[in-house]
Amino acid sequence: MEALDYENLYTSYLTKVTNRIENYVKPEEPVSLYVPFKYIMTAGGKRIRAVLPMIACGAVGGNPEDALDCGVAVEILHNFTLVHDDIMDKSPMRRNKPTIHTKWDEPTAILTGDVMIGHALKLLPDAEKNKNSCEIIKTFSQGLIEVCEGQAYDMQFNNKKDVKIEDYILMITKKTARLLETSAVIGGYIGDGNENQILALRNYANSLGLAFQIQDDLLDIMADESELGKTIGLDIAEGKKTFLIIKALEKAEKPKDKSLLKRFLQNNGLSKEYIPDMQDLFKRLGVFNDAQIRINEYFQKAESETYKLLENDYTAMLRWLLSRLNKRKK
Amino acid sequence: MEALDYENLYTSYLTKVTNRIENYVKPEEPVSLYVPFKYIMTAGGKRIRAVLPMIACGAVGGNPEDALDCGVAVEILHNFTLVHDDIMDKSPMRRNKPTIHTKWDEPTAILTGDVMIGHALKLLPDAEKNKNSCEIIKTFSQGLIEVCEGQAYDMQFNNKKDVKIEDYILMITKKTARLLETSAVIGGYIGDGNENQILALRNYANSLGLAFQIQDDLLDIMADESELGKTIGLDIAEGKKTFLIIKALEKAEKPKDKSLLKRFLQNNGLSKEYIPDMQDLFKRLGVFNDAQIRINEYFQKAESETYKLLENDYTAMLRWLLSRLNKRKK
Repeated sequence: MEALDYENLYTSYLTKVTNRIENYVKPEEPVSLYVPFKYIMTAGGKRIRAVLPMIACGAVGGNPEDALDCGVAVEILHNFTLVHDDIMDKSPMRRNKPTIHTKWDEPTAILTGDVMIGHALKLLPDAEKNKNSCEIIKTFSQGLIEVCEGQAYDMQFNNKKDVKIEDYILMITKKTARLLETSAVIGGYIGDGNENQILALRNYANSLGLAFQIQDDLLDIMADESELGKTIGLDIAEGKKTFLIIKALEKAEKPKDKSLLKRFLQNNGLSKEYIPDMQDLFKRLGVFNDAQIRINEYFQKAESETYKLLENDYTAMLRWLLSRLNKRKK
Repeated sequence: MEALDYENLYTSYLTKVTNRIENYVKPEEPVSLYVPFKYIMTAGGKRIRAVLPMIACGAVGGNPEDALDCGVAVEILHNFTLVHDDIMDKSPMRRNKPTIHTKWDEPTAILTGDVMIGHALKLLPDAEKNKNSCEIIKTFSQGLIEVCEGQAYDMQFNNKKDVKIEDYILMITKKTARLLETSAVIGGYIGDGNENQILALRNYANSLGLAFQIQDDLLDIMADESELGKTIGLDIAEGKKTFLIIKALEKAEKPKDKSLLKRFLQNNGLSKEYIPDMQDLFKRLGVFNDAQIRINEYFQKAESETYKLLENDYTAMLRWLLSRLNKRKK
């Protein structure tokens, strides 16, 4: 298959996901729950967590379509985290639309997130449908636990001045990578992959997730605003302890650099006019480069895992997905 | 067995639950999640949802101890609903202690509740431990969904002037009775009960839950404050659409009565000095009596279901539990 074929197949999976979501999430009673549920689930997003189980299932020899409901389940779980994170972070917008707690109110957003977990769980197969049903549910509940732990670490970082790279990697492992792992592993179980294949899928998605998050940190300050589709430098404004900031704190020696970073820490962020200074600082300290090296390493690690899977179009598609994400501009 | 023996057995189950909670919920990293989790789980409460699976398991011929972890799971799920409901209802205190969002903050309370769902799920048995594992997980996820729906209806009632008794029963069926059903049914599955027994356990717990909630409504305004352990009339102050209020709205004819109820609706509650007027109104309209009749009917219905179970000490204990709850003063 050619790159264009993968793109087409990916799009066809996305369409299946969209249709299944439309068909599952109905604006029924109580409407105060199900209208916001439908609102967030039909607002788009990249939906990698929804498509990944299908490709992973194919990569171990299963029928990708069998993993559709699990993909929707993990996508619902992911969206639940967004709904609750947006309350915690007081974010007014998501995907160019008002967040649920902004459009409705906080109680609605809390409760909508809660019920979404129940529906995600309901979409997982029982033992009659899939013999690995128990492993799937275990993977799912562990994913839920760890994504919450990741968010907890992220919030703890707000009040912590000495975040180390290892702390940061642990946080993004849980907050970003774990649900991608959940997707890939569940897909592998649906396709009845063996232990080694499941582990390869887990490692693939873990590395993909880590690369993806560091890329996000980089895009936030380096991207072309018109391509990114949002203002750049939001992480700086919000005082986020990104890969770049932590690396810069490690490497800064000049008093001027240290003082800029100190001001960032003390004020929990810096206003827009400091963005060029920060960009300059990151460039001079070589942290953009450090980030890019780390991203490449993770993408390579992810690719190396794919050779432990069946050599078929789906496994090739997992590799294509890496290069597609590596090139992303938003 | 005598009443005292049941009381002792119940207490021994409670001790097992407490020990298991102490042993499972550790204040580990991230502490911003697990310290509040431990805080809510060790703050007491009636723990009927934790003990019920053990008794139900015995009532279908199983070993009650096998249902311990499931009891803890449903207790965690119940406590998750309390943590999130307390945010939504802005309640400062629960069980004589500050609520999590008061002692810490809202993000902490949201995230603690979320991770609790994951841990509850993790405590359910897999197929190796119990052959009804899938039914147990389905019962659990349906319970989660419906308890959220119940809370959504309850919140919708705040802005609804014409709540009917059927709406109210649907709300408390989901908000209060469903998790008791979840407990009893899961206990039945652990003990490998047959379909009729599972249904009897479900109906038993459903009726018990409905009786329990209407009793709560009644106790809120009729109890002896020193026995109840909290101020009476909170439902009146908060403008809650209780069984009593809805019945009173149905039955009131005199302009004076209608005007008092109208004021209650318009102001979303009435201040403390109106409590004697409300008590008087409820008495004259016979709604205390209506509530007591309904409670008795539900307790009788619950009892009748127990005759479909094995005739053993555990089934007798289910009946003892009804009379114990029927007599409660708080």
